[in-house]
Amino acid sequence: MELIPTTRFLASRESANDSRVILFGLPFDGTTSFRPGARFGPAATREASDGLETWCPVMNRDLEEVAFSDVGDMPLPPGDTAGAIAKIYQMAQQVHVNGQIPAAIGGEHLLSFPLVRAAHERFSDLVVIQFDAHMDLRNNYLGVKLSHACVMRRISEIVDPSRILQVGQRSGTREEYQLAEPFENPRSTMISAELLQQWVGDRPLYVTVDLDVLDPSVLPGTGTPEPGGVSFSRLQSWIAGLASCKWIGWDVVELAPNLDPSSVSSIVSAKIVRTMLLASTATPC
Amino acid sequence: MELIPTTRFLASRESANDSRVILFGLPFDGTTSFRPGARFGPAATREASDGLETWCPVMNRDLEEVAFSDVGDMPLPPGDTAGAIAKIYQMAQQVHVNGQIPAAIGGEHLLSFPLVRAAHERFSDLVVIQFDAHMDLRNNYLGVKLSHACVMRRISEIVDPSRILQVGQRSGTREEYQLAEPFENPRSTMISAELLQQWVGDRPLYVTVDLDVLDPSVLPGTGTPEPGGVSFSRLQSWIAGLASCKWIGWDVVELAPNLDPSSVSSIVSAKIVRTMLLASTATPC
Amino acid sequence: MELIPTTRFLASRESANDSRVILFGLPFDGTTSFRPGARFGPAATREASDGLETWCPVMNRDLEEVAFSDVGDMPLPPGDTAGAIAKIYQMAQQVHVNGQIPAAIGGEHLLSFPLVRAAHERFSDLVVIQFDAHMDLRNNYLGVKLSHACVMRRISEIVDPSRILQVGQRSGTREEYQLAEPFENPRSTMISAELLQQWVGDRPLYVTVDLDVLDPSVLPGTGTPEPGGVSFSRLQSWIAGLASCKWIGWDVVELAPNLDPSSVSSIVSAKIVRTMLLASTATPC
Amino acid sequence: MELIPTTRFLASRESANDSRVILFGLPFDGTTSFRPGARFGPAATREASDGLETWCPVMNRDLEEVAFSDVGDMPLPPGDTAGAIAKIYQMAQQVHVNGQIPAAIGGEHLLSFPLVRAAHERFSDLVVIQFDAHMDLRNNYLGVKLSHACVMRRISEIVDPSRILQVGQRSGTREEYQLAEPFENPRSTMISAELLQQWVGDRPLYVTVDLDVLDPSVLPGTGTPEPGGVSFSRLQSWIAGLASCKWIGWDVVELAPNLDPSSVSSIVSAKIVRTMLLASTATPC
Amino acid sequence: MELIPTTRFLASRESANDSRVILFGLPFDGTTSFRPGARFGPAATREASDGLETWCPVMNRDLEEVAFSDVGDMPLPPGDTAGAIAKIYQMAQQVHVNGQIPAAIGGEHLLSFPLVRAAHERFSDLVVIQFDAHMDLRNNYLGVKLSHACVMRRISEIVDPSRILQVGQRSGTREEYQLAEPFENPRSTMISAELLQQWVGDRPLYVTVDLDVLDPSVLPGTGTPEPGGVSFSRLQSWIAGLASCKWIGWDVVELAPNLDPSSVSSIVSAKIVRTMLLASTATPC
Amino acid sequence: MELIPTTRFLASRESANDSRVILFGLPFDGTTSFRPGARFGPAATREASDGLETWCPVMNRDLEEVAFSDVGDMPLPPGDTAGAIAKIYQMAQQVHVNGQIPAAIGGEHLLSFPLVRAAHERFSDLVVIQFDAHMDLRNNYLGVKLSHACVMRRISEIVDPSRILQVGQRSGTREEYQLAEPFENPRSTMISAELLQQWVGDRPLYVTVDLDVLDPSVLPGTGTPEPGGVSFSRLQSWIAGLASCKWIGWDVVELAPNLDPSSVSSIVSAKIVRTMLLASTATPC
Repeated sequence: MELIPTTRFLASRESANDSRVILFGLPFDGTTSFRPGARFGPAATREASDGLETWCPVMNRDLEEVAFSDVGDMPLPPGDTAGAIAKIYQMAQQVHVNGQIPAAIGGEHLLSFPLVRAAHERFSDLVVIQFDAHMDLRNNYLGVKLSHACVMRRISEIVDPSRILQVGQRSGTREEYQLAEPFENPRSTMISAELLQQWVGDRPLYVTVDLDVLDPSVLPGTGTPEPGGVSFSRLQSWIAGLASCKWIGWDVVELAPNLDPSSVSSIVSAKIVRTMLLASTATPC
Repeated sequence: MELIPTTRFLASRESANDSRVILFGLPFDGTTSFRPGARFGPAATREASDGLETWCPVMNRDLEEVAFSDVGDMPLPPGDTAGAIAKIYQMAQQVHVNGQIPAAIGGEHLLSFPLVRAAHERFSDLVVIQFDAHMDLRNNYLGVKLSHACVMRRISEIVDPSRILQVGQRSGTREEYQLAEPFENPRSTMISAELLQQWVGDRPLYVTVDLDVLDPSVLPGTGTPEPGGVSFSRLQSWIAGLASCKWIGWDVVELAPNLDPSSVSSIVSAKIVRTMLLASTATPC
Repeated sequence: MELIPTTRFLASRESANDSRVILFGLPFDGTTSFRPGARFGPAATREASDGLETWCPVMNRDLEEVAFSDVGDMPLPPGDTAGAIAKIYQMAQQVHVNGQIPAAIGGEHLLSFPLVRAAHERFSDLVVIQFDAHMDLRNNYLGVKLSHACVMRRISEIVDPSRILQVGQRSGTREEYQLAEPFENPRSTMISAELLQQWVGDRPLYVTVDLDVLDPSVLPGTGTPEPGGVSFSRLQSWIAGLASCKWIGWDVVELAPNLDPSSVSSIVSAKIVRTMLLASTATPC
Repeated sequence: MELIPTTRFLASRESANDSRVILFGLPFDGTTSFRPGARFGPAATREASDGLETWCPVMNRDLEEVAFSDVGDMPLPPGDTAGAIAKIYQMAQQVHVNGQIPAAIGGEHLLSFPLVRAAHERFSDLVVIQFDAHMDLRNNYLGVKLSHACVMRRISEIVDPSRILQVGQRSGTREEYQLAEPFENPRSTMISAELLQQWVGDRPLYVTVDLDVLDPSVLPGTGTPEPGGVSFSRLQSWIAGLASCKWIGWDVVELAPNLDPSSVSSIVSAKIVRTMLLASTATPC
Repeated sequence: MELIPTTRFLASRESANDSRVILFGLPFDGTTSFRPGARFGPAATREASDGLETWCPVMNRDLEEVAFSDVGDMPLPPGDTAGAIAKIYQMAQQVHVNGQIPAAIGGEHLLSFPLVRAAHERFSDLVVIQFDAHMDLRNNYLGVKLSHACVMRRISEIVDPSRILQVGQRSGTREEYQLAEPFENPRSTMISAELLQQWVGDRPLYVTVDLDVLDPSVLPGTGTPEPGGVSFSRLQSWIAGLASCKWIGWDVVELAPNLDPSSVSSIVSAKIVRTMLLASTATPC
Repeated sequence: MELIPTTRFLASRESANDSRVILFGLPFDGTTSFRPGARFGPAATREASDGLETWCPVMNRDLEEVAFSDVGDMPLPPGDTAGAIAKIYQMAQQVHVNGQIPAAIGGEHLLSFPLVRAAHERFSDLVVIQFDAHMDLRNNYLGVKLSHACVMRRISEIVDPSRILQVGQRSGTREEYQLAEPFENPRSTMISAELLQQWVGDRPLYVTVDLDVLDPSVLPGTGTPEPGGVSFSRLQSWIAGLASCKWIGWDVVELAPNLDPSSVSSIVSAKIVRTMLLASTATPC
């Protein structure tokens, strides 16, 4: 698949061939209903990564040691949601076929749907952890089923709800809260990293990070900020705590850098992506 | 059709029944490829109208005398371009059936397509004036045919190119410039208001104003600003010069207020809409 | 009293008649000495409410169940402080006469003065809780007695200081701190919600929330941000903890949305207003 | 009168005693109805002046040669319009008594009223030139007579309308346009500098510059920007063209620097003040 | 010389070998005394170029036809002005040795000095056109000789003043205006493109565009905006008018994109660079 | 040494002679590699101080009681790093000679180097506490040794590492972390104020506060924000906890106010400077 060349994320390797993780950008926010801008997320995250160190004192490991390659942005047609989803699905499939881990920078949350679908085809026993302020369990939103507000509902039609762990939620309709009952739901923002790791065990793990799980003071640059969220350190420790698991795919979505003139949100996004790269490759292949 | 209630444009009448012009907002920018935000255009234009006077010294007439009603925003599904277009077409049709003039505040330029289509069904001899920095004559844009960058191409498939007058263009591909040859094209930003009025004559007139026809210094708040445009006074005089024509529909599109923190762009948009309301109702019914 | 029509707060009922709470906006910041903008607070709070859910997982209740009506903004004369105060006093009086709860969105903090005055006339045994970063106990500010910096001093001339509870303060003059001694003053930002509820008991309760009680990281959009404040979750729990009390009036003031380009402050304000609506109506009438 | 010490405008002399022009700031915008911020005008203008040269190639003269002193800001009570006006009147009186020229940086336009009143008492045959986008001839605004929207009406109750020249107006109510008929009104933005100078002749001249006379593209940072205004060069040439007149007072008002994040508006304001300082002192004492 | 890889300017060729123009970025603003940010100019210009068409209706030519290569950014040491200048000089020398045209995107204006120095060594009969709001003829600025405010003074020590044409200046000290007398100085912003072309004749031409020659309404994003400048169309026509000349080097400097939140300045810069690329390659090699 | 006159920090005394602390601004950010703006730190901190109270409830003391004088800004040559450092060193030396405490508002962190050097010459047994997100222990940065990224390395060449306490660090290269081993390093953001005070004991104390030690949610306005930092209250308590120590110099650096449009960062900086003034003068002379 032909990608749009970009500057690369900090410490990316040139060649994708011998990389364990294939990182790519999804500059699409076509179903965003409130405040657009997630389309600028990949570019802003890469640019901000340039200001980070490669060394991570929390994980005691250097990004230079990680075999990953940032292969650029996918060309996604503005205004054609179904077309975008189909392309992303093919891209993820292909990476799985190569035995590599697809990792995406969004873009809006809907785009996790084709990524999980491709992962599920290859790893039918996968589990999904969703860090997110919102349930995203609506059946449709303003009549549209392929919407960011419905992404976990679509995913739950593929992956059994008991295999989905929702963490950090603090907003939803009454119906969404009722629907979520069969889900594993330590929604409290106070859950420990240890519990997360135990829940996963040795099952293949897909992690989707909707950055709005963070408190808006930490990351104001997102489409639907939701007061009452978690600190940067907590999210970082959750991800680091999963380093012993078997990762098979992940995404970090919903940075809208245009909504934060201080650019701090982009720096937060880049540091989370750095943590994800380190966590998802901490075990031997 | 059920609309979303909003505050109303300055001097709008409460009842739509005896209004000559039906004004409505189109908060949609789903095919915007560069910088989104036109979805916020209707709200920002209405809010800014509150700071204007109703009296217009250029047209020597007061908005209080104009029989128009701002009926609110259309509910357009995020991410579903075809659905949005179908709804707008129905809305415009219905207004024409009532013998009224549909007038829209965008939203992105693609939305002129269903508006002109509905107008053309009722007035097959209509002419179209397009004030715009861009040609918008591409056959498709990144594979998408229903795109803001293709709107005049789609319209030209309904209305004969000889009935379309392009004014203010200063950007396009080589192919678009070649395609535009059969069009009436006094593209110079220096054309006089008199020539515009002569070209129209007594034919039914639809006017689409892409606000990026203005120089970006005048209106920075738009998705694809194009340096080298016209001054506010010139655009105002062009519109005022058409006051003796027979207007049957119009739109003002592509304000992206989020891109202009000074809010001047919204004020410009509101003043253009005020001028359009006065010009399109200057003749006796 | 004639009000300015606006869009309504999320889930507002159309008719005020059978509403328990009457919500109105006070777009006035005439005595603001530092950074103006609280006049834009009501509009921004309403607009942001549109992005919230009606369901509140903290209070386990839906705003759709609350009988409240947002009746619009009061027309307050720019530059005429005394005139504005007189109008607000009349408005609140009238709502009390109807047996309803007046609830205001500011605007600057001075406007709590006429609201409390009207409440005190009807409920002479009322108590007041002030969530605020500042004492607001000056006798005058730059020679002006009707000033936002003096509002609690003016109120303490009506309501006995022992009936006023100040929470969250972290700034004031030496004189203000001395004056505050007769006040109930668990000023610590660590006080528990239980203690607040016990202090109120079954006395009629007026709550004034100066949003600057929140840490500026949570709500940068306010005229005089004061570092060292409380988190969103704490303020939310304080308010929720008062749900069993007998509320007879409240206000949420000092959002200056123009000072926060990310708009997060407006979303915080809207979510606090949602919490106030739920808490002030949780008991049976 | 005790003033608030500030940094000084470029090239200000330390001592006020032997200065021909006394410059002072009026940080007040209490009656601003639309968008506040003119209170920040004096500080922003002084700060921007630091980036200008003292030499003016248009007037062929250096600000270092001008005997003027920037004496700081007046302390004006927030929320007390009448009090502010009284103080400004006293200040201007005192400067006239010393045989000096009072020159003010606003602040809102209402503040020209006490300045012209003091000037008129000393020079009963004075003429006034108003560069402004608006008429400012309302009798009251939202019930308030001391309002920025009424300032020329208040002045016209002191100075005969035939002695007031309005230049650059492009907005007003129908009533204001009717009222303005007895005024001298070359409102066209195209009038020549020569005509202005002829109209003044050898009469004592007061000039009030509402910076919104400029097109909003040139100066977006103002409370009520009005599209269709004049260029910087035209306003500069108008002022320079009056250099041979007998100036007895002036003001430059309505910069709201907070509304222009690029700070260009403040630089424009500073350059206009530099031009005013040079023009008002070009004749021998 | 090792360059920092970047995204490329619109339509850049991959290989530098057979390119006529070698384009590179100079992300340095170390001597900026007022408002920094020119270091971000190259990245913002390239990013904005992506939104432009390759076709230019003014020059009737397509950028796809131009043999140029954008080779990335030079690594310039922060805080080491002399070191940066030495590196740029070497880079330009090398390009001249290859018989190609060096073309730079700044960065601050001081960086034109090593570029002109290298050009002069190869083309001792070169002439220089400086489009600029400022003289830049100071001998030193705050004690520093290698300063943006001194760049033309430094250049005039290499190139005879009679071979330097200053266009668009409207600010300088008295001393700079006196010094400029031996220079060719059609400083009026009204000079025709024809006169420029005649002055150059068939002499080798270096063009330096300080973007602040444009009016700040057109380009607010620059360190020292100077009101009273030229329109976009005029600058474009000046450059286009030089298309028949023999270009041997050029630069476009002083875009500070961080100062213009609307990003219009970056778009203007990109369109000027596009025009420079077309003009400097219009003649046969 | 001649300083640039400025407005003064809140409660500064007019005369420097009998002051215990001499406060001065260092508007220089010449080696900033990422996002400039620290040059605007001193002015923004002073301006924001005007909105603070002089009373500090945490330290139970009033700034009016502190004998300190804000003597203005140092004139530092743009683009000449070595020259700037030499001037600052002389300034600090002179203050020490007078038996006063030099206290600086930055500006970039490199400027602590000459300040500590001058302090060390006078107090050879001094200890240094560095509150900072970063190690700043690189030997050079992009080839430059006098860089903000190397400041603690340069200081450690003068002051023995065992006398330097690093607090709050959360970013650095692997090499910096190895180098830091001989340093005292309670880097945890959770260390208690008591431990800090014990470490210092009765040794002469220099404190350097790089404001990026705070979490970016608290202070977004800084050049290299680093997620995961400390709250305002913690930093305030650390400083207050050192009030019993023998302070001999301090600085507060790296505020870049241009990066935070809400101005909250400037208010935080001013409140930290107020705390530093109170803490460094709490013991009898």
